[in-house]
Amino acid sequence: MSTSPQESVRRQNLGALLRYVHVRGATSRAELTSRLGLNRSTIGALTADLATAGLIDEGVPHETGRAGRPSIVVSPRSSRVYGYALSLELDAIRAARIGLGGKVLDDRAAARPPGTDAAPAVAGLAALVADMQRTAPAGAVFVGSGLAVSGSVRHHLGWTDDAIEPALTAALDALHLPHRPIIGGSADLAALAEHTRGAAVGVDNVIYLHGDAGISAGIIAGGRRITGYGGHGGEVGHMVVNPSGRLCGCGSRGCWETEIGERALLHLAGRAVPTPGAAVAAAVRAARSGDPDAVAAVEHAAGWLGFGVANLVNIFNPTVVVFGGTLRELYLAGADHVRTRLTAMALPACRDHVGLRTPLLGNDAPLVGAAELAFERLLSDPLDTTP
Amino acid sequence: MSTSPQESVRRQNLGALLRYVHVRGATSRAELTSRLGLNRSTIGALTADLATAGLIDEGVPHETGRAGRPSIVVSPRSSRVYGYALSLELDAIRAARIGLGGKVLDDRAAARPPGTDAAPAVAGLAALVADMQRTAPAGAVFVGSGLAVSGSVRHHLGWTDDAIEPALTAALDALHLPHRPIIGGSADLAALAEHTRGAAVGVDNVIYLHGDAGISAGIIAGGRRITGYGGHGGEVGHMVVNPSGRLCGCGSRGCWETEIGERALLHLAGRAVPTPGAAVAAAVRAARSGDPDAVAAVEHAAGWLGFGVANLVNIFNPTVVVFGGTLRELYLAGADHVRTRLTAMALPACRDHVGLRTPLLGNDAPLVGAAELAFERLLSDPLDTTP
Repeated sequence: MSTSPQESVRRQNLGALLRYVHVRGATSRAELTSRLGLNRSTIGALTADLATAGLIDEGVPHETGRAGRPSIVVSPRSSRVYGYALSLELDAIRAARIGLGGKVLDDRAAARPPGTDAAPAVAGLAALVADMQRTAPAGAVFVGSGLAVSGSVRHHLGWTDDAIEPALTAALDALHLPHRPIIGGSADLAALAEHTRGAAVGVDNVIYLHGDAGISAGIIAGGRRITGYGGHGGEVGHMVVNPSGRLCGCGSRGCWETEIGERALLHLAGRAVPTPGAAVAAAVRAARSGDPDAVAAVEHAAGWLGFGVANLVNIFNPTVVVFGGTLRELYLAGADHVRTRLTAMALPACRDHVGLRTPLLGNDAPLVGAAELAFERLLSDPLDTTP
Repeated sequence: MSTSPQESVRRQNLGALLRYVHVRGATSRAELTSRLGLNRSTIGALTADLATAGLIDEGVPHETGRAGRPSIVVSPRSSRVYGYALSLELDAIRAARIGLGGKVLDDRAAARPPGTDAAPAVAGLAALVADMQRTAPAGAVFVGSGLAVSGSVRHHLGWTDDAIEPALTAALDALHLPHRPIIGGSADLAALAEHTRGAAVGVDNVIYLHGDAGISAGIIAGGRRITGYGGHGGEVGHMVVNPSGRLCGCGSRGCWETEIGERALLHLAGRAVPTPGAAVAAAVRAARSGDPDAVAAVEHAAGWLGFGVANLVNIFNPTVVVFGGTLRELYLAGADHVRTRLTAMALPACRDHVGLRTPLLGNDAPLVGAAELAFERLLSDPLDTTP
């Protein structure tokens, strides 16, 4: 069916308006009028359509502190319209029911079922969803789901998105949750989350670096996620920085993660690796208390962190670099070393404007990003009723 | 003035149609109908508008080889609608008058005026334009200009776009050529050119590597140019690949260009650097004839070329890598070494689908990309008559 020009523009405007309140929260009609560049009567017609569809609420604010008639405030109906955000990590599976506007309505987590087969992990995620679905209010509307898959799962278990997606689609279908889940890499989705609701709001060029068992990156350039062919870009952990360095599990020598990854840091600090993430935080604490091995390990890894960041800054010229996962602790403990190396190595035109930051969303970032994927279909065409 | 929904959609469609024939050349109305997803009467109305505005010609093809009434063919009016494409290089300035559709109507080149001040180079470019403008046919319509500035000019002369743009705008204004020129980096624009009309047509994720006095990259990700903050991304020449290597002019040690740049190659091959570009080609020829120093130099540089490409492939996951400038010769002479290193270092998910290619547009690529910038304003809103 062909769509008339008027209808096509109306749908674009509905999507823009709903996306605005989804990202920014409750917003006055006056602000929407000015931010979306539409006139008051158009905004009124659009919000009426969205309210009728049950996607937003309109109301008068309690007090405005200003003279004159207060502008009506438009809010996303978080309690009625929801998606599922899922996260598949090396040692955990997580799921959350998220309302339009990004509100966490419910959440569950479990250990990842052991083994190298993806099916039990997918079944585990579906079980967490089923559990939450039982308590979802009658009349609430499901609009989609998103899944973050960590780089470690992709590398250490070798699970491709193509192996996960059909099983997850079938499991959600069996729960009467239609729409194919959208899958992304954890670092990519963490970057999207920090860009939408965290440490890099309003910044068009962002590198989010995540450390856990490996090192990966999520990259936003020109306001958009850079995922490369098949969604497998951002493998910065295997950027070789030290050709005379240690052998990496990938077969190369001197990959970035052999210098700054948790194994490298703990090895240098003379520590065992029982529960690596926690051990990194402990080693960093030991460095702060003056333990000489731990101090040397942090200085070594922080210097190489700055080294690789300088390379990426020269390549991408971002405005913000965010350090997540174990790299957050490392950056906080060794910020001077990171900054010194960055200043020495990056070109002035590329480094002068770069802000180094820690995440605002912490370990929830991949899940928050997965929720953005879950709402993407609704936001691109809010009144589309195709199942 | 507010634009009605119908008018807004019509303008989008006019732009899409004109862009299609600009990029693909003469196209039948039947193909436009299917490619743009519009019905025949809409296509007829749009082409009528564009013909009235003097932007396209419509005509019946001479022979079709098929039964039935031949579909009318739509062609860009290359001889009437033109822009200026300019290129500012370390040792040369170049300018071309380019017709809609990408046809080179006229071109000029000169040595870059010596000195470290940008004003004489801008005046030189304007003089080349003035010379071509004298022979432009009466009634021809100027729609814009684009300038490619090479990475070497930016680095070795320190000329910022902000220093060049006002002077060039004023010089073109004095020739009665309105519209601010749009400036881009040479490697960025070469990537755009190869993506639009060369070795990477139809490919959404492309890295174009250019070698001259330095090494720079133009990157297309998700079909769009990645330029970073202020247009200064793609500085891959200063990605450090060998921390124990040679000092680079930028102050770091072991930058990629200290291993694969023309100075490195010529130094290893035991050659002086009188006219570097030509000397690289000569050294590569010597390697092909078995000169041992030249063979060793090519093997060294080609191995490091593969090393850096592997890093970039892990980061961006492109489908095509194009080797331009001096890197074209180096790649052709050492393709096995490049491919071997790439296979050893890049992750399978990132490298399996990567094609390594040479440019189709050769040294004209930055100029062809600058022409795309020159037409951007027209193509985004063909009937906009704002001066």
